Amino acid sequence: MPQGKPETVPADGLTTRQRRNRPLLIVHTGEMKGKSTAAFGLALRAWNQGWPIAVFQFVKSAKWKVGEENALLALGETHDRTGQGGPVEWHKMGAGWSWSRKQGDEEDHAEAAREGWREITRRLAEERHTLYVLDEFTYPLKWGWITVDEVVTTLTSRPGHQHVVITGRNAPEELVAAADLVVEMTKIKHPMDTGAKGQKGIEW
Amino acid sequence: MPQGKPETVPADGLTTRQRRNRPLLIVHTGEMKGKSTAAFGLALRAWNQGWPIAVFQFVKSAKWKVGEENALLALGETHDRTGQGGPVEWHKMGAGWSWSRKQGDEEDHAEAAREGWREITRRLAEERHTLYVLDEFTYPLKWGWITVDEVVTTLTSRPGHQHVVITGRNAPEELVAAADLVVEMTKIKHPMDTGAKGQKGIEW
Repeated sequence: MPQGKPETVPADGLTTRQRRNRPLLIVHTGEMKGKSTAAFGLALRAWNQGWPIAVFQFVKSAKWKVGEENALLALGETHDRTGQGGPVEWHKMGAGWSWSRKQGDEEDHAEAAREGWREITRRLAEERHTLYVLDEFTYPLKWGWITVDEVVTTLTSRPGHQHVVITGRNAPEELVAAADLVVEMTKIKHPMDTGAKGQKGIEW
Repeated sequence: MPQGKPETVPADGLTTRQRRNRPLLIVHTGEMKGKSTAAFGLALRAWNQGWPIAVFQFVKSAKWKVGEENALLALGETHDRTGQGGPVEWHKMGAGWSWSRKQGDEEDHAEAAREGWREITRRLAEERHTLYVLDEFTYPLKWGWITVDEVVTTLTSRPGHQHVVITGRNAPEELVAAADLVVEMTKIKHPMDTGAKGQKGIEW
């Protein structure tokens, strides 16, 4: 990570402390692995701070990322049992959102994605969590299921001190413009280039 | 992550299963945040597979990454207590390696880095872990404290099924050439560009 002095000091009237504690909108995009894993790595730091964390997986199939899900939920259990770290919630679209009554096969993916976003909007208004991971959220934006304008307006006007991390390829320009921190994961080399397939513990 | 069919199928005589289960040498490099966090995110998957994990932090100061350290060690404790997931070890150079008798201030950083690498070499030979995270390991390579040739030879000839993830800026070319998967974390936008400083839960 970039260390040391900031390159410029803005004339925004904020103290360093206020600027330091600014809630961040973070985007992990690009074609390569690492977008979601880096978001879940950030969740480890957040957990250690005792922050309430919620992950929202915007994927059609819920079979992926069970490793991260189990591990982060285990950390949430450690919190519930010992008070160490923060509480963790994990919600996924693929099998019906955990808070929703509609479980099982979700026929209308677009509506399911919108339902997820509406819940996130409610939680942001209530300041329910300190870190939100909106995993693969760029896809419902790209497919027009949720409008980017609405998302940007909601996120940039969110109250309190809530960090939001959005992952996925092809982050829309308006989202990048609104974000505080944007990382692109770029491929230099991938095993699939030479015919390898995904494997447990690495891809899931 | 890239999904679907591999782009080519090599004539290497291996079955898909053998190719799938190839132990990987992974490098996370580039100027931007996400190199280490993505490595620790991978550790969540590895933990869920029950793999023995070891992190080696090649940094002079041990003050950073305490969030990830506490969280991954909490997962290790969950393993020790319940059998869920895998065991986790975390070793750091800054305060003297955990296995070493020399604790406290480490005056000779180059020698400390070499000591860390020698221990990793021993553990690789013994097949002690399934996932090794060599965090910020590119720096002792860049500074000539450890020779790249030796590292590449040791890593490419490691026995059994051991995955190794190396993080840090400026990964040497020979290391990139030897790796199976290389991701570059590229900056699109960073809060420090506009005068912000690092903050808890995000940078540590």
